[in-house]
Amino acid sequence: MPADLRFMRRAIELARIGMNSGAGGPFGAVVVKDGEIVGEGYNRVLASNDPTAHGEVVAIRAACARLGSFSLEGCEIHTTGEPCPMCLGAVLWARISRIYYGFSINDAAAAGFDDREFHRQFALPAAERMVPSAPLAPEEAKELLGEYLALPGRARY
Amino acid sequence: MPADLRFMRRAIELARIGMNSGAGGPFGAVVVKDGEIVGEGYNRVLASNDPTAHGEVVAIRAACARLGSFSLEGCEIHTTGEPCPMCLGAVLWARISRIYYGFSINDAAAAGFDDREFHRQFALPAAERMVPSAPLAPEEAKELLGEYLALPGRARY
Repeated sequence: MPADLRFMRRAIELARIGMNSGAGGPFGAVVVKDGEIVGEGYNRVLASNDPTAHGEVVAIRAACARLGSFSLEGCEIHTTGEPCPMCLGAVLWARISRIYYGFSINDAAAAGFDDREFHRQFALPAAERMVPSAPLAPEEAKELLGEYLALPGRARY
Repeated sequence: MPADLRFMRRAIELARIGMNSGAGGPFGAVVVKDGEIVGEGYNRVLASNDPTAHGEVVAIRAACARLGSFSLEGCEIHTTGEPCPMCLGAVLWARISRIYYGFSINDAAAAGFDDREFHRQFALPAAERMVPSAPLAPEEAKELLGEYLALPGRARY
């Protein structure tokens, strides 16, 4: 299916609503299935005091709620800005099939939204990342994993 | 501050509640500030049909709601499993200061949760990732960025 400008324009419209109301930055997104919008949203980090409420995450959650599924396989996401690592992770987990973005990470950096350092973080070994991380009680946690594997009819996804 | 086993054990307890009720996998998390739990959660991907409802994301959202802030600077997160890229992104955006995890990504892979491919995706150039992405209407999206920059008293975060 060829890219459809309508959906990006709707994402831009949503972003404009969000930024003009002070909800967050210029980020809107729509999830499309079979040529129809099934979920949409804009950045609400400020409005909802939620650092995870990026446009893509809001749109993915809305689409999943509407479709009654945690999988958006076969869907496309149209987002005003190239996804940050968190949103790219959400796109991967949602099994979204294609991403269309308006401005790039470099464009966003020029406007003061510099996700590039975040993207660089993912290419580093854990020990070199800006947030230190360390194992704690690994044996107890591995016992938990074992319990999970032994659960009859355990949740799979 | 030394690592405190209590918090990891609470994360494990939360994970157990979640997996035994079929809400999701063996993933629980607690956000700690000044030695006190300010947010907690477990994986609810299945229970809420939400692919973003990983334990860390649920705990971060709860902590932000409780503290009335999108920043968790100075907080630590204790999570049963080493964070996936989406959750690591959420940790970075929330400005969490330290991560403690129970089982590692390799331990999780042995139990069938293979985030390693997801982690590998982030080290690849966009063109080589499993989800294709392409720019669409970049000039219109860049106009939006310009409007944002010209907003008086625009949201900053």
